[in-house]
Amino acid sequence: MSDKAIGIGLIGLGTVGGGVGKLLTEQANLFAQRLGRPVELRRVLVRTQDLAAAKASKLVPAALLTDDAEDFFKQDTAIVVELAGGVNPMRQFVSRALESGRHVVTANKSLLAKHGPELFALARKHNVSIAFEASCAGGIPIIYTLQFSLLSNRVHGLYGILNGTCNYILTQMTRHNQPYDTALDAAQKLGYAEADPTLDVSGADAAQKLSILASLAFGTRIVGEQVPCEGIDKLELADIGFGKEMGYDVKLLGIAERGDDGKVSVGVRPCFLRADDLLADVTGPFNAISVLSDALGHSLYYGAGAGRMPTASAVVSDILNIASGWYPQAFAQLRLTPDLHEPAALLPAEQLVSRFYLRVNAMDLPGTMAQVTTALAEHEISISAVMQHERNEGQHVPVVVITHEVAQGDLNAAMAKIAGLDCIAGRPVVIRIVDLPH
Amino acid sequence: MSDKAIGIGLIGLGTVGGGVGKLLTEQANLFAQRLGRPVELRRVLVRTQDLAAAKASKLVPAALLTDDAEDFFKQDTAIVVELAGGVNPMRQFVSRALESGRHVVTANKSLLAKHGPELFALARKHNVSIAFEASCAGGIPIIYTLQFSLLSNRVHGLYGILNGTCNYILTQMTRHNQPYDTALDAAQKLGYAEADPTLDVSGADAAQKLSILASLAFGTRIVGEQVPCEGIDKLELADIGFGKEMGYDVKLLGIAERGDDGKVSVGVRPCFLRADDLLADVTGPFNAISVLSDALGHSLYYGAGAGRMPTASAVVSDILNIASGWYPQAFAQLRLTPDLHEPAALLPAEQLVSRFYLRVNAMDLPGTMAQVTTALAEHEISISAVMQHERNEGQHVPVVVITHEVAQGDLNAAMAKIAGLDCIAGRPVVIRIVDLPH
Repeated sequence: MSDKAIGIGLIGLGTVGGGVGKLLTEQANLFAQRLGRPVELRRVLVRTQDLAAAKASKLVPAALLTDDAEDFFKQDTAIVVELAGGVNPMRQFVSRALESGRHVVTANKSLLAKHGPELFALARKHNVSIAFEASCAGGIPIIYTLQFSLLSNRVHGLYGILNGTCNYILTQMTRHNQPYDTALDAAQKLGYAEADPTLDVSGADAAQKLSILASLAFGTRIVGEQVPCEGIDKLELADIGFGKEMGYDVKLLGIAERGDDGKVSVGVRPCFLRADDLLADVTGPFNAISVLSDALGHSLYYGAGAGRMPTASAVVSDILNIASGWYPQAFAQLRLTPDLHEPAALLPAEQLVSRFYLRVNAMDLPGTMAQVTTALAEHEISISAVMQHERNEGQHVPVVVITHEVAQGDLNAAMAKIAGLDCIAGRPVVIRIVDLPH
Repeated sequence: MSDKAIGIGLIGLGTVGGGVGKLLTEQANLFAQRLGRPVELRRVLVRTQDLAAAKASKLVPAALLTDDAEDFFKQDTAIVVELAGGVNPMRQFVSRALESGRHVVTANKSLLAKHGPELFALARKHNVSIAFEASCAGGIPIIYTLQFSLLSNRVHGLYGILNGTCNYILTQMTRHNQPYDTALDAAQKLGYAEADPTLDVSGADAAQKLSILASLAFGTRIVGEQVPCEGIDKLELADIGFGKEMGYDVKLLGIAERGDDGKVSVGVRPCFLRADDLLADVTGPFNAISVLSDALGHSLYYGAGAGRMPTASAVVSDILNIASGWYPQAFAQLRLTPDLHEPAALLPAEQLVSRFYLRVNAMDLPGTMAQVTTALAEHEISISAVMQHERNEGQHVPVVVITHEVAQGDLNAAMAKIAGLDCIAGRPVVIRIVDLPH
């Protein structure tokens, strides 16, 4: 590469886009020194309805702003940075950038979770690259780690706290005994949760990220909609409390595992972790990912999974690494991205084997415990621990069971039977227990 | 790069070398698929006195083994992997590899801590690269993270558990109340500590690693002997216990910090961390590094810092990343390694500002506490907490003081005065308290 400045076009000047503009401006000298050539922001494309506010924000010089895509793509830019989010029209903008021979940096998890393979293939066709470190877990370098640092490893499992909003809410519930609604309210007041928090608390956001991470970790192809997810909005303080008594903390985990048969299991759900697991100590709006791989064993990556500057950190590193020429070389040479791989053979959910926490509300009558444990025994589910507290009032007592390893299908069948027992009231609760190496 | 096999020469077939041989052999197909070309181990150089044992080990085909450096360098190899360790003759072998146009992968921290700048410059001169992920913290990708993932960041501080032997011993002392000698004995029985554990327990090993990491983190040049170190062999269970009562856990930390004035402070010493800090939860022979940087904030990297396969993981990833062509491109283009930077302006140790834990053994007499606190006040050291337990026997009571932030030079002066007081017996204990963001 030459010593002349490399031109950058930026799409979107929201939270992260503003941070990227700020970093590129404030640290221009540092970056030019590290890279051996300057990086120059040449155009920022925003929606017409956002143009006035973008000019007023002073995040980038007003002369750089445009709401005209033709003007944007006319500029001399080598890298387009897409931070507007959403599938459309970003799919078109990213495609156009690649087709015009520009590299793309994106934080757009929903676009990559849905159209990643198509876009990676398009980049290859036009001899450019897509860098996407900021699409998963903000500034944590998990994408580079999976691609380059673990290149010598086969990954067996990936366990991620991938949504800071949920982790903040669960921290409030777990450590401060706040019910879900109170904790959500606090998250919204602090700006950790949107006014409509559905995408976060449903687990859908984490599922998109997990599809990207699992595709890289296993050298396969998984799209977001293949990842089943269960959110945190049904979690009750009672179960968090019983878990604690038994030495477990609850986390919303995105889990991807590959068995010896090559079958891949993916899913997002609240899980119990041993309270002394490092992931259990990840509190507040932070993210962390534990990776189990054959050569390295257990490794963990922790940091800010969202926010202006942490996400801009990943975006700008991607820009600089593309500008240096090494990232495009790695993208072209190494066979890592999902366009180069077959769709994953997914393990049917009912075949997932794990330990589980179960809780039912049972009548405080003779024989109740026998009926529950008999139903479990009929499905060959063996019990590791049972907890039933004395109750002074009311007729229902919570019965908590910790199982040994069991197939989820067998467990579901047993729980359906248990839910139908006369002595059981309400919805049984099932939470996966994840045993990571100590 | 072409599709033909890339030849590898390996120096040393010890613990890590054996793991590299095993990985390259067992995963040859996987690596060829990821890389688009095969990687082939073509020669393994061992010392004459190790040749028979290396042949008997079956770790690599006997035909690959040689004790003849001329034979080794005659082979068609593009990458030399140096895993024998020690400064000499490895300095000569690595130089010869570079001079003959071969890239080098090394895990040799003592060589890089002493001669890194000279060797990086030599690599540049011959248009090849040195990859050294395995030189610090085994398989944890801290070198790639500092170089590539944090390329957009200014690092302010780096806090590392960089020696698994010490961390195992401290875990035994802290969690199982074992005195130092018992814990060291356990570490030796498990193979975590050498028969002569000096290099580990003195902090010297961590200091070498810290010099490499600090050079990268701050874009400067620091050699191993510039890093002051204090080991764990003088630590007493009493102080670990008092720390616990006050909410602190002890860890041997390698700390590198850069002030706003650009001055760099480096050192390895036992430190107290808040018990709820993630680093405090890193137990057993594991390593972890917390990094504070301007854009990303606090991030942490955890994993196995030693051992055959974890270290081989980093070595083989380096081999594959060189073979793909991207690492040499990054090495050539980005201005990251210490050969390109000036020697660091080091902060004099007495100017280091921190909180400290102090413990003196005082006579249980009226006025003792007043003399101690007066000596501190005379040096303008303000006290955050004091703890003095009642004692039923003997005439000495341990007085524990937690200071506010103070310059180490002032503290040393005050402690010298206190140690000389008639009412004080034995050696005062001073342990740095490190407050990482929560």
